[in-house]
Amino acid sequence: MTKPTLKVALLGAGTVGSQVARILTEDRKDLIERIGGVPELIGIAVRSLDAPRDYQADASLYTTDADSLIDRADVVIELTGGMEPARTRILRALNAGKHVVSGNKALIAAHGAELMAAARESGAQFSFEAAVAGAIPILRPLRDSLAGDHVTRVLGIMNGTTNFMLDAMDSHGAAFDEVLAEAQKLGYAEADPTADIEGHDAAAKAAIVASLAFHSEFHIDDVHCTGISEITADDVAAAKNDGYVIKLLSVCERDGEGVNIRVNPTLIPRTHPLASVRDAYNAVFVESRDAGELMFYGPGAGGAPTASAVMGDFVSLARRGILGGPGVPDYSYRGLQATSLSNVVSRYTVGLLVKDQLGVLASIANKFAENGVSIETMHQTKHREREDVEGADATIRIVTHKTSDQKLKSTIDELSSLSAVFDVASVIQVEG
Amino acid sequence: MTKPTLKVALLGAGTVGSQVARILTEDRKDLIERIGGVPELIGIAVRSLDAPRDYQADASLYTTDADSLIDRADVVIELTGGMEPARTRILRALNAGKHVVSGNKALIAAHGAELMAAARESGAQFSFEAAVAGAIPILRPLRDSLAGDHVTRVLGIMNGTTNFMLDAMDSHGAAFDEVLAEAQKLGYAEADPTADIEGHDAAAKAAIVASLAFHSEFHIDDVHCTGISEITADDVAAAKNDGYVIKLLSVCERDGEGVNIRVNPTLIPRTHPLASVRDAYNAVFVESRDAGELMFYGPGAGGAPTASAVMGDFVSLARRGILGGPGVPDYSYRGLQATSLSNVVSRYTVGLLVKDQLGVLASIANKFAENGVSIETMHQTKHREREDVEGADATIRIVTHKTSDQKLKSTIDELSSLSAVFDVASVIQVEG
Repeated sequence: MTKPTLKVALLGAGTVGSQVARILTEDRKDLIERIGGVPELIGIAVRSLDAPRDYQADASLYTTDADSLIDRADVVIELTGGMEPARTRILRALNAGKHVVSGNKALIAAHGAELMAAARESGAQFSFEAAVAGAIPILRPLRDSLAGDHVTRVLGIMNGTTNFMLDAMDSHGAAFDEVLAEAQKLGYAEADPTADIEGHDAAAKAAIVASLAFHSEFHIDDVHCTGISEITADDVAAAKNDGYVIKLLSVCERDGEGVNIRVNPTLIPRTHPLASVRDAYNAVFVESRDAGELMFYGPGAGGAPTASAVMGDFVSLARRGILGGPGVPDYSYRGLQATSLSNVVSRYTVGLLVKDQLGVLASIANKFAENGVSIETMHQTKHREREDVEGADATIRIVTHKTSDQKLKSTIDELSSLSAVFDVASVIQVEG
Repeated sequence: MTKPTLKVALLGAGTVGSQVARILTEDRKDLIERIGGVPELIGIAVRSLDAPRDYQADASLYTTDADSLIDRADVVIELTGGMEPARTRILRALNAGKHVVSGNKALIAAHGAELMAAARESGAQFSFEAAVAGAIPILRPLRDSLAGDHVTRVLGIMNGTTNFMLDAMDSHGAAFDEVLAEAQKLGYAEADPTADIEGHDAAAKAAIVASLAFHSEFHIDDVHCTGISEITADDVAAAKNDGYVIKLLSVCERDGEGVNIRVNPTLIPRTHPLASVRDAYNAVFVESRDAGELMFYGPGAGGAPTASAVMGDFVSLARRGILGGPGVPDYSYRGLQATSLSNVVSRYTVGLLVKDQLGVLASIANKFAENGVSIETMHQTKHREREDVEGADATIRIVTHKTSDQKLKSTIDELSSLSAVFDVASVIQVEG
């Protein structure tokens, strides 16, 4: 019996696209067995025909005419990134009933609902495991393995660059600027590191994870996002001293009848499984009603790891493309709404720069009490008078019990008005 | 549009079965949305109608006539465990084209090939995520997420009881018998703990994982298995002292043109992600060509966690049962063979009870050299003369570089013949 052929168009030949081209070429024999059909790479759409590539496929495959390539394909693998022309091209494919695999997190976090609707309309399949946490299988476990369970919370380290930086600060006591320079030198951080360090990259992934975990459509604008640029060596050292480590955490959790999605620097206890995620690795910690606590760990980026995730999607979708059957299930039946930060209940650490004088602890403790915020621990550390702030000769670190964002904010406002408090140096959430 | 109904037969109402009955009953509304059809629990086959249950479903559902229940169902969920009548019942269902979900690791490790063949023959789907590592999604990621990749090695902590015991020995320096008694008191270990401590439970899971990871059929008899009953507080303390922790590890790795599958106590460095798997948790660490290193962590047993895995399989299979399409892919196209231990290359620690006399280290080191085994480190610890072994007043611990099982065995044989060596107290693999 002749096996059916599946025509594959690859859009993009960058770090990930090159690896996908390599696997499609070199693993042809295995792929035929796994798919039950013959995947034929019919072309690779690129911007420039003579750019250097990590993997050089047959020269005749490269083309600058993406649209006509899409029109000739059964399956389109989009690995160009960015909003346009990626969005228009994916829609062109889906509208024509062609299956699409994409790793474009920014696009999916911004236009996922539109793309899913197009797929639903035409009966095409649309998969994007590679968009979140590189090689780590997280979307499929959320969608399929936990299909009979109820996720209550997801905590994720979803950005490798910032995890590398925070881990280096934690291990060597280095300053933020030093570790950023090191990350740039090693190629972990871009020349313009904004998307990583301000949390935008993690926020896009959090929106996608929240959508699948809670069966609802969330947009990157639904994510409350704070980056790590304010985190100092002092914050990291103080956390370490208290048995915590600071991570840029994506938190997606049920909040009343909605879902709260946020990305911010967060203290987690060193005994928590997420605390041992080092270097540029990613991990996603899932809490669910029946399964309990699960963690998925692995490389969050890189050409070959991300290509592995793309190929996993491709094989599943190609099997169905050939044998028929249902595509990826529609994940949005719940229709939950994103919630504001004001109801979020969490623990916090607060670092205050103060003058060590009679009654300063009492006046600070009173402000917390008046605002209904319960204190778990309070430490004062005496130090030399700061050169930049006259009279500031001590630091007070407070860890609160669980409290609402609103109550904490009003406490912080009132603390700033105390004459002995020179600066609220840091306010960081505590999870885990 | 009326949604189609799917008749579900549940076999077994024990710890896991009760939780599945609860979820099918209480989550009906969500399940209908997720499946696209109505799952109707038509009966629960039990041995005794009036046994106490963790969850009491409608009394009319319980029956002792499993066969006629199976004959009326579209989907059968088998959670009785053991070989018979489970095997005959699953075959009855699959032969009639009914889809089956099972969590029966012993049965699948022994008769998986027969059951898969029956499913293939009739076009029925057969899923068993719950058979390995409880709630942790591991079979689906191996089968689907890594479908375009090549797994090179799997290292797994797949038995919660022994991990609890080894973790307690590591944390409190307790003896084997103490921690076994504690595990039994807490309900982690059975009155007869043989299946856990001798590694048979982990071996069944290793055979299943190896089958999916390497696209070949493996049987529990293909697994080389050593339990933890010989592990002493001294072994654990010595490992700790050297920066290692002892885990009962399942190792499945490519070995030439075959696959080596073994379960044995193994030293892993404390910096390895598997080292931080505490208590009765399980974890599976996967090394693959493109994805690199992935780890999946979570509860390896328990009613609700295992039920979550069963329900994940059920929802996926029910969607396909209603909407049509390909079932679980056939995983055996590779046909790789299991290999013997003799070619396995690993690092080892060897603990020797000796008399501290002139030349003893040299004579031991010579035996390693003569057999072609390279030594990484060698420590001698002097202690009081052992009461049970006259003259034995020192312990030597050797860590080898990578060597074959065969070379190590001949070294050990020759060491035993040295007059200054009283006992080869321990030989433990090192991985990671």
